[in-house]
Amino acid sequence: MSDTFVIIGGDAAGMSAASKAKREWPEMDVIVFEKGQWVSYGACGMPYYVKGDVGSLEDLVAVSPEDFREKRDIDLRTGHEVVAINPDAQRVTVADGSLTFDQPYDHLLVATGASAIEPPFEGMDLDGVFTIHDMDEAAAIKTYVDAHSPQTAAIIGGGYVGIEMAEALAAHDCDVHLYEMLPHVLQPFGETVAERVEEHLQAQGVTLHLETEISGFTGDEHVESVHFEGESNPADIAIVGVGVEPNVDIAANAGLELGPTGAIATDEYGRTNDENIYAAGDCAEARHVVTGEPDHVPLALTANRAGRAVGQTVAGSPTRTGATAGTAIVKAFEFGAARTGLVDESRALEAEFDPVAVTISAPTRAHYYPGGTEITVTLLADRGTGRLLGGTLVGSEGIKRVDTIATALHAELTTQELQNADLAYAPPFSPTWDPVLTAAKVLEGKRRDE
Amino acid sequence: MSDTFVIIGGDAAGMSAASKAKREWPEMDVIVFEKGQWVSYGACGMPYYVKGDVGSLEDLVAVSPEDFREKRDIDLRTGHEVVAINPDAQRVTVADGSLTFDQPYDHLLVATGASAIEPPFEGMDLDGVFTIHDMDEAAAIKTYVDAHSPQTAAIIGGGYVGIEMAEALAAHDCDVHLYEMLPHVLQPFGETVAERVEEHLQAQGVTLHLETEISGFTGDEHVESVHFEGESNPADIAIVGVGVEPNVDIAANAGLELGPTGAIATDEYGRTNDENIYAAGDCAEARHVVTGEPDHVPLALTANRAGRAVGQTVAGSPTRTGATAGTAIVKAFEFGAARTGLVDESRALEAEFDPVAVTISAPTRAHYYPGGTEITVTLLADRGTGRLLGGTLVGSEGIKRVDTIATALHAELTTQELQNADLAYAPPFSPTWDPVLTAAKVLEGKRRDE
Repeated sequence: MSDTFVIIGGDAAGMSAASKAKREWPEMDVIVFEKGQWVSYGACGMPYYVKGDVGSLEDLVAVSPEDFREKRDIDLRTGHEVVAINPDAQRVTVADGSLTFDQPYDHLLVATGASAIEPPFEGMDLDGVFTIHDMDEAAAIKTYVDAHSPQTAAIIGGGYVGIEMAEALAAHDCDVHLYEMLPHVLQPFGETVAERVEEHLQAQGVTLHLETEISGFTGDEHVESVHFEGESNPADIAIVGVGVEPNVDIAANAGLELGPTGAIATDEYGRTNDENIYAAGDCAEARHVVTGEPDHVPLALTANRAGRAVGQTVAGSPTRTGATAGTAIVKAFEFGAARTGLVDESRALEAEFDPVAVTISAPTRAHYYPGGTEITVTLLADRGTGRLLGGTLVGSEGIKRVDTIATALHAELTTQELQNADLAYAPPFSPTWDPVLTAAKVLEGKRRDE
Repeated sequence: MSDTFVIIGGDAAGMSAASKAKREWPEMDVIVFEKGQWVSYGACGMPYYVKGDVGSLEDLVAVSPEDFREKRDIDLRTGHEVVAINPDAQRVTVADGSLTFDQPYDHLLVATGASAIEPPFEGMDLDGVFTIHDMDEAAAIKTYVDAHSPQTAAIIGGGYVGIEMAEALAAHDCDVHLYEMLPHVLQPFGETVAERVEEHLQAQGVTLHLETEISGFTGDEHVESVHFEGESNPADIAIVGVGVEPNVDIAANAGLELGPTGAIATDEYGRTNDENIYAAGDCAEARHVVTGEPDHVPLALTANRAGRAVGQTVAGSPTRTGATAGTAIVKAFEFGAARTGLVDESRALEAEFDPVAVTISAPTRAHYYPGGTEITVTLLADRGTGRLLGGTLVGSEGIKRVDTIATALHAELTTQELQNADLAYAPPFSPTWDPVLTAAKVLEGKRRDE
């Protein structure tokens, strides 16, 4: 008799695990319980659906439920919510509308994801006030925009979602105001990136309200105003994107350990403190490639990779989930920003490095080649060893170069080694010294001279 | 009294060495002899000057001779040809028009570059038949095109220069025919890349003549025809780009050792078999990062980096020139192709690896995000160890991703390690699994299964 692998949650981590396990061990019973109706969807694409770049929400779905069931032979049950885990009995309790039943498992994966934080603002339940973390919310926003043609928009939070939604609503001719509690947008990208993105947002007509705490929304039938620090602005629509929190309740209730970040603690194979239970994706911790410490990186690739590794492990080939570098990239109108590793000196100090950083600007193409623009690269290294700790890029093209830095972090390269990397040059693609190499050269010089 | 550093050749390697040496040790006398008038120019930009994308040849010059002399205090002497090196006496003999004089040195850098190969074709000296390896040639081609408005063009050789010149002349409404002796264009990029580039060239109206040896050109005042294998085609202009050869004569005459590639042999600091003489750039060998063997990579970054390292070494801080991965990238009309490392199974076998390769095609952006295209990635690894050996990319955007592979080669990553790299994802920039990661995953699977 074959094993039963039960998975809670049918998005990136869950469906990656299910697919990989089934491919590696076709006889295994793989059951996925998903409380909603959508599975395996590209949540990161939702702002582009609202913007109008993506025609239908279905386009965001990578693999349909039917294909999971029929082509991959996965017992995928949408509309099924797991309400409890009983680790001792190796069973989960599942609520299917009116029915509740128990499902035994040999291996369990908790892939419950994360949820948008709902701050205690007044008027959060007003029509026209949205968070955006699932497909139903994305659908509701698009419907609202199409029905009401809002003239003014309030975006609360200057993270990825806030910036992407600012672009999306500006495309609908909204007058967009963005409210951020901190001194800068895109906090995890550092001040250099933030300042360039802020300039660009303003040039695109977005009004920024930095270091501004909002108190809530008012309106009659729909939202009409956003209130902050004794002032108010009109707002025909409001998007609240102030971060996400891992969905850990059923895991915590079952006695699974949470880590220092509040997400589910796992070992390098994604295993929790219960040997038959794994956690992966936005609800789980990952190991940071530079610090070696647990981190919570609720991003798609981390989820896909960890899910895939757990699927492979459960199918009999123990596979590490891999480390995260916290690599991220975001489009802001005609600009892009990217980050990887440690980009914040205080975080580097905490991890007991002695950080030294440089910021350079360099052209994306040969200086004489048409169409190039300047990008800004920041690199951070440990002064004593030269080990590269992290970096950021910002500009209007070529910021996928962050992958070079991320790869160097995984390989534990020093700035000396990175500056000697043989990167590609031809006038339409790069200056002779790629901007990443220039930054590494300057950082290596600074590190040695100081 | 301070040392004298003499440099033969005023392009990438020579001027990088001069600048770095002077910056590190300002008291040193740095003398550069350049036989022509141009220094520190972007030879790679010449096709774009001919095409019309770059307004003037002066735009290709990174730093002017005046700035080298005045701002960097380098004794730059253009129109001075070094005709002999006397290693025992530590002197070079310099011809300056009618005068000849001897110049003593403490340290000497041979940075004589490479020259376009001139095959023994009939009619090579006809007006309208050009090679393209220096600025005067580029100027002559542009002048000829502007004066004669050629209707038909014959490009001999399907390497970088041939493909870039095909694009340049097509932009002048030439009917371009490209003749390549080998079965494919872009031989160092492998067959997969070549076939996709060939399709694209044909779609752009270039007529390809593969496995075709030309015998020469005929014409009255100007070139009128190109002859090959008993046939002929009209040709109002012909560009012969069949490769380059290192300029090693004065080095060889002075007893400096040449390596297996025919270029000047150097150690890891760029030193020749004479302890006071270095060689760098297109005339010198470099060490290949994967094989550890000497290689001849006449490309700009290798030259710049080696020159800079020699300048630093001569100034008192011994600095390795760094290894080459043979990384290269080329634009072909709306397409790009890139390579790094070993991409040829026979070369991998020679280096005593057991090569295994995969080729995948993947979208450059999320499948639902507008504007993405498919790129093709080939990766090569050693079967037993999983060590990555090289890779290529081809497509119409996103091929600078080759830098990720190049960085992995420098770090000696395995496919397992590369597939776990945390590369950047957001819908406008990449699918969740970057195409390089997908290729690494597929290669790792193939390596383990076979």
